[in-house]
Amino acid sequence: METPTATPPPGTTLGGMTSLDAATSPVLATAQRSRTAAAAIAPLPRSAKDTALLAIADALEARTAEIIAANAVDTDKARAAGTSETVIDRLTLTAERVAAIASDVRDVAALPDPVGEVVRGNTLPNGIDLRQIRVPLGVVGIIYEARPNVTVDAAALCLKSGNAVLLRGSSSAYSSNTALVAILRDAVESAGLPADAIQLVPGESRDSVRELMRARGLVDVLIPRGGASLIKTVVEESTVPVIETGTGNCHVYVDAQADLDMAVDILINSKAQRPSVCNSAETLLVHRDIADAFLPRALDALADAGVTVHGDARVLAAAEGGKVTALPATDEDWAAEYLSYDIAAGVVDSLDDAVTHIRRWTSGHTEAIVTTSQAAARRFTQLVDSTTVAVNASTRFTDGGQFGFGAEIGISTQKLHARGPMGLPELTSTKYIVTGDGHVR
Amino acid sequence: METPTATPPPGTTLGGMTSLDAATSPVLATAQRSRTAAAAIAPLPRSAKDTALLAIADALEARTAEIIAANAVDTDKARAAGTSETVIDRLTLTAERVAAIASDVRDVAALPDPVGEVVRGNTLPNGIDLRQIRVPLGVVGIIYEARPNVTVDAAALCLKSGNAVLLRGSSSAYSSNTALVAILRDAVESAGLPADAIQLVPGESRDSVRELMRARGLVDVLIPRGGASLIKTVVEESTVPVIETGTGNCHVYVDAQADLDMAVDILINSKAQRPSVCNSAETLLVHRDIADAFLPRALDALADAGVTVHGDARVLAAAEGGKVTALPATDEDWAAEYLSYDIAAGVVDSLDDAVTHIRRWTSGHTEAIVTTSQAAARRFTQLVDSTTVAVNASTRFTDGGQFGFGAEIGISTQKLHARGPMGLPELTSTKYIVTGDGHVR
Repeated sequence: METPTATPPPGTTLGGMTSLDAATSPVLATAQRSRTAAAAIAPLPRSAKDTALLAIADALEARTAEIIAANAVDTDKARAAGTSETVIDRLTLTAERVAAIASDVRDVAALPDPVGEVVRGNTLPNGIDLRQIRVPLGVVGIIYEARPNVTVDAAALCLKSGNAVLLRGSSSAYSSNTALVAILRDAVESAGLPADAIQLVPGESRDSVRELMRARGLVDVLIPRGGASLIKTVVEESTVPVIETGTGNCHVYVDAQADLDMAVDILINSKAQRPSVCNSAETLLVHRDIADAFLPRALDALADAGVTVHGDARVLAAAEGGKVTALPATDEDWAAEYLSYDIAAGVVDSLDDAVTHIRRWTSGHTEAIVTTSQAAARRFTQLVDSTTVAVNASTRFTDGGQFGFGAEIGISTQKLHARGPMGLPELTSTKYIVTGDGHVR
Repeated sequence: METPTATPPPGTTLGGMTSLDAATSPVLATAQRSRTAAAAIAPLPRSAKDTALLAIADALEARTAEIIAANAVDTDKARAAGTSETVIDRLTLTAERVAAIASDVRDVAALPDPVGEVVRGNTLPNGIDLRQIRVPLGVVGIIYEARPNVTVDAAALCLKSGNAVLLRGSSSAYSSNTALVAILRDAVESAGLPADAIQLVPGESRDSVRELMRARGLVDVLIPRGGASLIKTVVEESTVPVIETGTGNCHVYVDAQADLDMAVDILINSKAQRPSVCNSAETLLVHRDIADAFLPRALDALADAGVTVHGDARVLAAAEGGKVTALPATDEDWAAEYLSYDIAAGVVDSLDDAVTHIRRWTSGHTEAIVTTSQAAARRFTQLVDSTTVAVNASTRFTDGGQFGFGAEIGISTQKLHARGPMGLPELTSTKYIVTGDGHVR
């Protein structure tokens, strides 16, 4: 008689991939251990995962001094290499920041468990019970830049969704990430889960990234988080399925009929509230019928916010004699994700021309329309093909936190699997359970 | 004032991809036209799409002679090349088969439109209305083998879901596919939609497939349908996102406690009801405690169904002196998708050993357990990581039609985007609509 036990069988690779590769590559050997851990944590109930998450939060607080010391190695190295203070600031961990990271982990523990959710379920005409349920993806690889808080965030979200995570941070944060992952692994193990549920990709070289991108069959998905060039490399070179994230060339379009005060507010908030993030606006498009009334106010407000305008001929004409710094826009400006106090700006002859411009230049992240016309709002939302279309709202709302997801692993700008802010459900797949009483066809 | 018109703006490429490539490659130029058509059909209401589908069905029936004549060119060529009659049969179109294809198109017209469905919607604490709605993927590329009915099926499903389709059939069906696509395009155009919503990839050479796989930014997803080697090539070489389909190394596991009659029925149905399809069983695993009682009956039933067994030592011992043809199983047998009257068979010491075997060898399609034990059923469904787990039911139920989806574009064996039988919703992505009254952060 079969006696089910509490321990799952050892995880093995799909489709008969041999362990030969793993024997010769430390990266693949690590991925193989992630795969084994993934099989062990996939069926765990919420309580087991939450216990581990709370252990992580406690350990981060208890071992803050260790984290700060390891972080100092990275920041010292960065300073010696002449890295800019902005980048060093993003790299720096303080006691306060570690406490905030620990608090985020507790927030993740408080979120509902996506695994096991019945997405679809019914009884078929022949009496079979069909259920589609959420299951973990398996092994999630994250390739990310500078900020070491991503190490903990990503590990927490993957653990909560029953996935093993394989982390490949920036070499500039290697010491911080090594210390953080050691603490996370200790905590996970103390909670009775396999430490290998959280692993760092070994090695600081580019080769280790390349091997990770070729670990098809061992890694289920790669999520690059960072600048456009990192994401482009991963998308082009990976044979592991990729979820593209984050590049944001977002547009604000002010329609022929618009509340001018609202339009200025939304423009300035979208551009200047936090220019360094992907959901900030990079291009302003204005309908010609409202350009004379709107542009002088908009350009003044942009000047007050410290924004430089890269305008087309009509925008430059409107800027003349005003206080805003205005330069001629090139194709590079229309394509740019500035992430700075710069904005491209142009006048369009119609809403459809605005849509055509957006479809040509957008990265597909977020586009906003400001309008009082119901017909224009409807047409713009229908025709714009981006993760998010905002009507009379700032582009800055495209965010897992703002959307009420409670957490975010990134913002997908692709169409497959997940589009827009990704929360815990986006870190799952599904499987069908077919239950019969001896049913055959 | 903005006056919305009925004509959408011309479709353009995402992210500023130039039309330079399209100028030098017929495949990319075709993909560019698909992209333009995709932008035009994406916002169309259901009635417009259904009118086109019904026009397609009518045209297929009206022009059956033309289809059969074109098909004869392909079958003559195949016969001259010494192609097997089984393959020629799959390639052949008769008046009856064309009528059946037309009827399938009418069935697709009768299905609900997935586009516009609100997947998630709520009002955020700040008063913003958030809606996540289904939208078409855009341009769907299908690479498929022999059977020309796939040409029409795929075109109908893509049109219904608001996608432009780019078809790359087998060169052995080139004449049939060319005739079919010409008829589909005429019908679509007669219904007022752009003919380029349905296109054939130009050229019969392998190079055209390669170019299609590199058309990232023009093609949104590639779905290979066919044998394992086709799928492997596309998965490995494509920079366009791929949905892997169809390879099925499905397992039937007979647990320690099982109804023997039910187990034999499910085994024979899973293996022999239609061995050439992906959801037929390729491996039998039997718990050692029930092997003595079950194997003699199972092997006899397999012999009666004309199935050759590739067994491990314990199965071969049980087969000795019986009527079944039994050969020793190698690793190739455990990995095989026979698609024939062959089955690999082994005895396992526990349910967990069965799971370990399955995880090692499965293509992740469908695995069945036959058991009277609730605990065993629960553990098996939790631990097996495939698109579908069947409890006391044949593996043959993993099918869009059987699941009640009304149509199927293929069966995804990957974890991202779609897993298991894919119907119309799986041919969509989503976008978020954020509606405010001037909301800023």
